[in-house]
Amino acid sequence: MSTPKIRPTTAADAELICHFIRELARFEKLEDQMQATPELLREQLFSSNPVAHAVILEDAHGKPAGFALYFFNFSTFMGRPGLYLEDLFVLPEYRGLGFGKVLLTYLAQVALQKNCARMEWAVLDWNKRAIDLYEALGAKPQSEWMTYRLTGPALRELAAQSKQEP
Amino acid sequence: MSTPKIRPTTAADAELICHFIRELARFEKLEDQMQATPELLREQLFSSNPVAHAVILEDAHGKPAGFALYFFNFSTFMGRPGLYLEDLFVLPEYRGLGFGKVLLTYLAQVALQKNCARMEWAVLDWNKRAIDLYEALGAKPQSEWMTYRLTGPALRELAAQSKQEP
Repeated sequence: MSTPKIRPTTAADAELICHFIRELARFEKLEDQMQATPELLREQLFSSNPVAHAVILEDAHGKPAGFALYFFNFSTFMGRPGLYLEDLFVLPEYRGLGFGKVLLTYLAQVALQKNCARMEWAVLDWNKRAIDLYEALGAKPQSEWMTYRLTGPALRELAAQSKQEP
Repeated sequence: MSTPKIRPTTAADAELICHFIRELARFEKLEDQMQATPELLREQLFSSNPVAHAVILEDAHGKPAGFALYFFNFSTFMGRPGLYLEDLFVLPEYRGLGFGKVLLTYLAQVALQKNCARMEWAVLDWNKRAIDLYEALGAKPQSEWMTYRLTGPALRELAAQSKQEP
C-alpha cells in the first residue's frame, strides 16, 4: 500500500472540499440534500472562528484521495468536549487500501490532543463496509438513542411561537 | 400556567447546571456516566471561547425549573451551521406545563438568529413523553442513521496506531 499523507486545509481547498462533499452525498444517495457551495464552505470553515475543520488525505503522489470534516461537540455527562466526525470519504479508486482507517487514527489523535472524552459519527444503516470497520476499531453503536431533526418550515413555525427573544 | 422566563447563564450558575445535568443523568438511568463537576463546567462553558452554551428556565417566581445546553455543529450538505441540543431538562414538579416546549421555541429562535439550517438532538427510545412532543412539533427521527461512539481505551489504542502527528 502506498503511504498516504494527511494535510490541513486552507481557503484554497474550498472547491476540492465541496467536490468531496458532493461525491459523498452521491454515495449516500442524498444528493438532493446537497446545497453547499465553495463560497459557503470558505466562509464557514476558514473564517477567524471556524465552525468545523477539514483535512485532506493525499496518496503517495500527492493526489487527493479523500477527506474528513469534523467539529467539537460537548458531553455534559463527561464535562469535556468530544470530536464529532461529520464526514469521512475516500474516493472509490482508493477503497480497500486502509485509507479510511488512516483518517480515523489521525482524528483519534486530534481528539486526544484536544482533551476530548470521545469521538462520534453517524453512518447509514446500509453501509455495511463502513460499519464493519467501525466495529473492528471498537466503536459502539448508540442504538438506544434516536436523533430528531427539525428543519425548514417546521423550524420557522416553532421559532415564531416563542414569547421571548433570545 | 405560570409564565416561565429563560435567562442566559454565567460562571455563577456552574453548580446549578451541574445539578440539572445530574438530575437528567438520573432520569435517563445513566448516572454511572456522570463525571462532570462545577469546575469542569465553569472551564468549558464560561471561558473566552466556550464550547457550549446553557440557558436556565425560571418559573414565575424566579425559581429554576429546568435548563437547556446546546452547541453549534455543521451540516456539510447544507454548508451551514446547525444547533445541537445536548440537554433539555425540566424538574419533575414542573412537567406537563409546557415548559419543555418553551425551551424548544426559544432555541429554535436562537437557531434562526445564528443562520442555522436545522436543530437536532437525541432522545432515549423509551422516553415516549418526549418523543410525542418532538413528533408534534414536526421533528423527524433520523432512523436510517446509526451513531457510533469511540471512547476510553479503544480511542487511545486507535490514536496510538497513527503514523502521522496532527
